[in-house]
Amino acid sequence: MISQTLKGFRDFLPETMTVRGRVINTLKSVFESYGFSELQTPTLEYAEILKGKYGEEAEKLMYLFRDRGDREVGLKYDLTVPLARVMAQYPNLPKPFKRYQIQPVFRAENTQKGRYREIYQCDIDTVGTASPIADAEILAIISDSLTSLKLNNFMIKVNSREVLRQITDSPSILQSIDKLDKKSVEEIIEELKTKGVETSVIQDILTRLDTLKPDGHLNSIIDQAQKLGAQNIIFDPRLVRGLDYYTGSIFETVVTEPKIGSITGGGRYDNLIQSLGGPNLEAVGTSFGLDRICDSIEEAGLWPDLTFNRVKVLVTVFNTDLTDKSLELSVKLRQAKINTELYPESKDGIDRQLKYASKKGIPFVAILGPEETEKNFVTLKNMLTGEQKRLDLENLISDLKN
Amino acid sequence: MISQTLKGFRDFLPETMTVRGRVINTLKSVFESYGFSELQTPTLEYAEILKGKYGEEAEKLMYLFRDRGDREVGLKYDLTVPLARVMAQYPNLPKPFKRYQIQPVFRAENTQKGRYREIYQCDIDTVGTASPIADAEILAIISDSLTSLKLNNFMIKVNSREVLRQITDSPSILQSIDKLDKKSVEEIIEELKTKGVETSVIQDILTRLDTLKPDGHLNSIIDQAQKLGAQNIIFDPRLVRGLDYYTGSIFETVVTEPKIGSITGGGRYDNLIQSLGGPNLEAVGTSFGLDRICDSIEEAGLWPDLTFNRVKVLVTVFNTDLTDKSLELSVKLRQAKINTELYPESKDGIDRQLKYASKKGIPFVAILGPEETEKNFVTLKNMLTGEQKRLDLENLISDLKN
Repeated sequence: MISQTLKGFRDFLPETMTVRGRVINTLKSVFESYGFSELQTPTLEYAEILKGKYGEEAEKLMYLFRDRGDREVGLKYDLTVPLARVMAQYPNLPKPFKRYQIQPVFRAENTQKGRYREIYQCDIDTVGTASPIADAEILAIISDSLTSLKLNNFMIKVNSREVLRQITDSPSILQSIDKLDKKSVEEIIEELKTKGVETSVIQDILTRLDTLKPDGHLNSIIDQAQKLGAQNIIFDPRLVRGLDYYTGSIFETVVTEPKIGSITGGGRYDNLIQSLGGPNLEAVGTSFGLDRICDSIEEAGLWPDLTFNRVKVLVTVFNTDLTDKSLELSVKLRQAKINTELYPESKDGIDRQLKYASKKGIPFVAILGPEETEKNFVTLKNMLTGEQKRLDLENLISDLKN
Repeated sequence: MISQTLKGFRDFLPETMTVRGRVINTLKSVFESYGFSELQTPTLEYAEILKGKYGEEAEKLMYLFRDRGDREVGLKYDLTVPLARVMAQYPNLPKPFKRYQIQPVFRAENTQKGRYREIYQCDIDTVGTASPIADAEILAIISDSLTSLKLNNFMIKVNSREVLRQITDSPSILQSIDKLDKKSVEEIIEELKTKGVETSVIQDILTRLDTLKPDGHLNSIIDQAQKLGAQNIIFDPRLVRGLDYYTGSIFETVVTEPKIGSITGGGRYDNLIQSLGGPNLEAVGTSFGLDRICDSIEEAGLWPDLTFNRVKVLVTVFNTDLTDKSLELSVKLRQAKINTELYPESKDGIDRQLKYASKKGIPFVAILGPEETEKNFVTLKNMLTGEQKRLDLENLISDLKN
């Protein structure tokens, strides 16, 4: 048998999943603290729902096929089309509808660029209100989320389509401006020239761009976001965000240390849900680059306390006669809410069991041999320092709890 | 646009997801308290990995197709084949490898029988040891999980292939015996006759079946499981479990109240991982019927305290002038770790905001109107009783915390 994953598809082994699980739980609890609730939609949808929504380029990346009933079906491509379908299918959902959704989507990207084909997206959206409070709340959630993830060095850049409209309505020009953070001004000028924009117009646009200021509506969003506790919001006139569907505020978050780069993108898109086949409902939201966040936290070692599997202590098994003592100890530690792994093989020696703890990154090992059993104590070995202590049950529990 | 899910595929709307999320978190924390860690594998695998593993019938239910690179691929059919692949692909994983995995699998079942085509499976397995402690631990985890889910009325039935071998080695006869809990003895006798078993042999088997007792190995598994805290284990000589691949202990859990029926099934399968293309590693594990558990808890209303979205209080917005006061209040409540939803539309009247809270099942509503702002209190309305209280911030927080 071939023993490998398809290109662009990943196994998440325990070490990686521990970080991912913690990131996801942290985000969920922030979202829920603001009253957002979870939605999950199927992996497969009718192809008709997916097609014709994102242009030809996107369609080439979709996983479409005929199922056994000869229906044309496809794997989820993003979380927004399913949201539009849900809003159409369940018209009685209370509105504003505030949902978060964390699920994989599938894109047959070129894997040579290091891209994945099964990508975990994480979206939050408020559907059914045009109120600036909803925009502000999304910004506050971004700020709270990053702070909770201990990614404290971030900037939330905001702008709005209304503000940009003071300069130009042309999507093509805006697309070039959007690249100003990646390319030089000269390159952008060249690009605009090839698009047929006159030099004087280009100069005028670039000059006025940096004099732009937030309008009243955007100021009120920023102000309310700050009242909701959002930190590090800055107005960035050069922020455009490529996607045509934004109609109002737009935002993007950059983490500067560790140097992760852009990890959220979003804005207001009041016409999109209808254009995707849903009802006429305004919406504002953001997506989090979950894979990038998880990879960065793991690589930067930001959460050193996370072991392989969140286990605090390995209870060893000395021999068959003493097995029952180890079983009992493991029960008592679990009752004290200490995650406790019991080594399941009584015929392996203590050395091998210690190696196992070390390989799995379990910080403590409890040993219950004949002397321990007779004198009623436990030997606790700190795997990091090598230090050994003799402790009775009460002190063992309080030691492990700290 | 068609606005519907494919047959056999489900949206999990917030109300349902709240229960599912709680069930999953409860199970995860029990698994982790025993040192099991999470594994996730891709939705898509090479078809070659999936095919030829479970017989023709299963293969007819697989979602297989050619991707854009003309590779033959398939959607996950279960979580055991991917586990076998993982064990082969990462030979250095520390063993015993104790993993849990909660992910959807895909089977093109006949939906007329109420079957789903995207099914969330939840498996725990210990790979790489033949020790009875590993079997016992699985039983203890089943017991702890059900108790944590408040499904206290359960029976864990156990048996073993060794014990059954005292009666017969024939898989075909065992398959008929397995149906004794669903069909009458007469029907089973008929079935065995059509399989060509002689009447005297049938009578002998059925008589001896009920006199079977656990052998030494199974007794030691049961004894250790009880030492690990497992409750309600009973030896059931009639338990066979259809799948051919079990080699040792077998177990199944039935919840009697609410009448859910069978919700876990598992056992020891020491040859399966190798026969699926993995290395030669013993294994024992169980799967939980996650969909059945979640549906039952929701239908039986076992967790009445779970609201739509875990929100405790809706902070209303009286009018545009008083919006900032409401924003500030929502921040203070969240800082006090109270999940707080802010109504985002200041132009909607309080009546409409109360209706929204009621529709979403939010238990409390906080009102901050002109009188409240002037006299520095908040009106808290209990949506269940209709009772209103005037509270300062400190009492508001302590009221909501209880």
